[in-house]
Amino acid sequence: MTDELSDLIGELVDATPEQQDQVLRQVLATREPEEVALLLESLPLQSRLETWRKVPADQRLQILLTMRGDPRETLLDDMSREDLDALFQGMAAEDLVELSDSLPKRMVERALWVMDEQQRHYFEGARQYKDDQIGRWVTHEMLMLPTNARVRDGMRLLRRELPEYADTLFLVNRAGHFSEAVRIGQIIGSPDHLPLVDLSEDVFPVLEGQEDSVDAAIKVQQSGYTALPVVDENGRLLGRMDIGTAGELVNTYYEGQLMAGAGMDEDEDLFAPVVKSARSRALWLGINLLTAFLASWFIGLFEMTLQQVVALAVLMPVVASMGGIAGSQTLTLIIRGLAMGQVTNANLKALLKKELSVGGLNGVLWAIVIGIVASIWFGSPVIGIVIAMAILINIAAAAFSGVAVPVVLDRLKLDPALSGSVILTTVTDIVGFVAFLGLGTLLLL
Amino acid sequence: MTDELSDLIGELVDATPEQQDQVLRQVLATREPEEVALLLESLPLQSRLETWRKVPADQRLQILLTMRGDPRETLLDDMSREDLDALFQGMAAEDLVELSDSLPKRMVERALWVMDEQQRHYFEGARQYKDDQIGRWVTHEMLMLPTNARVRDGMRLLRRELPEYADTLFLVNRAGHFSEAVRIGQIIGSPDHLPLVDLSEDVFPVLEGQEDSVDAAIKVQQSGYTALPVVDENGRLLGRMDIGTAGELVNTYYEGQLMAGAGMDEDEDLFAPVVKSARSRALWLGINLLTAFLASWFIGLFEMTLQQVVALAVLMPVVASMGGIAGSQTLTLIIRGLAMGQVTNANLKALLKKELSVGGLNGVLWAIVIGIVASIWFGSPVIGIVIAMAILINIAAAAFSGVAVPVVLDRLKLDPALSGSVILTTVTDIVGFVAFLGLGTLLLL
Repeated sequence: MTDELSDLIGELVDATPEQQDQVLRQVLATREPEEVALLLESLPLQSRLETWRKVPADQRLQILLTMRGDPRETLLDDMSREDLDALFQGMAAEDLVELSDSLPKRMVERALWVMDEQQRHYFEGARQYKDDQIGRWVTHEMLMLPTNARVRDGMRLLRRELPEYADTLFLVNRAGHFSEAVRIGQIIGSPDHLPLVDLSEDVFPVLEGQEDSVDAAIKVQQSGYTALPVVDENGRLLGRMDIGTAGELVNTYYEGQLMAGAGMDEDEDLFAPVVKSARSRALWLGINLLTAFLASWFIGLFEMTLQQVVALAVLMPVVASMGGIAGSQTLTLIIRGLAMGQVTNANLKALLKKELSVGGLNGVLWAIVIGIVASIWFGSPVIGIVIAMAILINIAAAAFSGVAVPVVLDRLKLDPALSGSVILTTVTDIVGFVAFLGLGTLLLL
Repeated sequence: MTDELSDLIGELVDATPEQQDQVLRQVLATREPEEVALLLESLPLQSRLETWRKVPADQRLQILLTMRGDPRETLLDDMSREDLDALFQGMAAEDLVELSDSLPKRMVERALWVMDEQQRHYFEGARQYKDDQIGRWVTHEMLMLPTNARVRDGMRLLRRELPEYADTLFLVNRAGHFSEAVRIGQIIGSPDHLPLVDLSEDVFPVLEGQEDSVDAAIKVQQSGYTALPVVDENGRLLGRMDIGTAGELVNTYYEGQLMAGAGMDEDEDLFAPVVKSARSRALWLGINLLTAFLASWFIGLFEMTLQQVVALAVLMPVVASMGGIAGSQTLTLIIRGLAMGQVTNANLKALLKKELSVGGLNGVLWAIVIGIVASIWFGSPVIGIVIAMAILINIAAAAFSGVAVPVVLDRLKLDPALSGSVILTTVTDIVGFVAFLGLGTLLLL
């Protein structure tokens, strides 16, 4: 896909207007909405909007639904009220849930106003849950029958419709509570009069609306079923989480983790307007600046030393960066473990011991290497000893912080993937500089 | 899941042996193999092996299959030849493909030796493809009929078996070429004598064995179907890629991207043996050390300056880190775009222009802020001017390298997620130090 997509971008950007129209028509006829969405995201703002205006009204919704938040907003902002109304016509509840973050509030109201009764009801239901709860992301098209239904009822339903990603039929009691699930394959072979309950799965996972959306989505991916029921706190069936939506949720989560490392989020637009993009990144730069000034302040405590032994200033980056890298290795491992629920009180001590041992080994190894190089470079064995000790101290501190920082952030309900790295490198910078310059002051002056 | 998993880890680590046995029995009876795998990964090596030895032979394979590479190896290494033979009994081709990287070569041969003819044939087929090609990861259980089959044949097949993740039936010609796909829902409602071809999907995506495995897996996730056929270069059906396997491939890819940032891979074991872990991380520290020494060498060129204006040594980390952060924001955005096929020759110039503009804006903003702070701190407006200019230069260089470095790495077929960050910070460190100390030499001496 990636290669083909690159080619299409080239054809759309470099071609004459007539060629562009032809390419676009072909793309819209043969590609999945997801690919069209990726393509539109790859176009510079102006040509993105020009292309978008040529997309027929009936294909727009599907494309918007799979687009990332920020680029989607650029398109919605450009649409006239009439175009938006056309978009809202016959929209399903889950589509409006997906779009509502990118729409001004009054547009959401407008969409609700043209929405049919049942869908509006579903939308209100989803709105009871937060962004990170699975109840917000359920879909409502599913195979459903009363608990006393028989195989013949099941077959009648299957003949009429078989929604995407439906491998089981849900049995629901009078109060609307989910009760059992029956595999379609079980229904097809069985005698007409048999109660469906007799064919139901022995163990079938049920999701609760309040569950974390990513955890729940992963459960769907691992269940072996194509969709799981989602119920409210009273057991009433809210809808289902299918493996398609689950995949989107999980992929979005991972994208968010990757972007968080640089203080951005998964909605970031490749071609965001310059001022908007600069503003959103400035905050992260500002936070980082504070930590850099803090490190500088600690260095400033040793001005006298630096003046007399300038070799220390030259070698400072080595001490800081070895600590930063060693720490980020531990940090990355622990963040993944926390996300998967694999790091907990019970194994924390064992983990810390292991990471400190790994850090100790690498600390000794690199302390020796760096000590020798520095001794030879500056012709002073004492400088070699000073930097070797500082490296050892800093790598050990890095191992400790690499475990402690994300664990503490997680306890505080902060995302370690976002702020873990900034805090960690602040620690390793300061420990590194203070150890190095402090030892230098003691041994070299 | 994550919370429940944490609790289970606690119960297994802290409990008495009898309690442990009870917890384990309950876990094995009620949890998905994926959860048991996560649980085993979370246990320190010794207690992981003790727990593993108590897992009944018939549950072992499913757990091993979903485990990460390195922890899986710790378990396989611990198993006796008899236990391994039991594991190999009746193993499917795709299971051996999954395990073969964690097994010594002679054990793979042994497994092939006890494998049935058909599965061995499938395994040899998968081995024709590389790790990153989708042909290697196909499964072989699927609904298949000759192209001239009718609805009654389809119904007969459906009554007999309905594999996981099967929402279409594949029609295959005499030469074994994939020809059409028919939705199960279409078959169920239709008259017995109708040829299945008449019900087939108009457009149905087909994957080729050589396609990139992650791209192909994403295609499956986006197709709306639960599985797509995979064919060889002659159109012969090799097997299918189902949405369950596709999700695993995509999730593993994202985990790999997250780990690559710290020079590790997705197979890394939370409780790897200390020496093994230290060795695997040492390489990354060594590479980083070379870049740190390079930066130091550039600083060393300005020893005279540093000796006379020690404020420059104090402020060095601010210049380097602002460049590093600004660059990593651009880098992260471009790496994602490259992975999705969204960054290409056609939009590269526009992207560079946008990132340089964003960098320019933030460069000017932070240059002013930092310049003022530095002037006041050291009571020297010239120091303020020197650092302001250096910050502006470095943030611009960061924006340029943030685009150029990953694009060049991608052209060279190197993974920008692995080495992009090291190269980028080397550039921003060196540009930052040289600009800052160079300007300092010119304006302050």
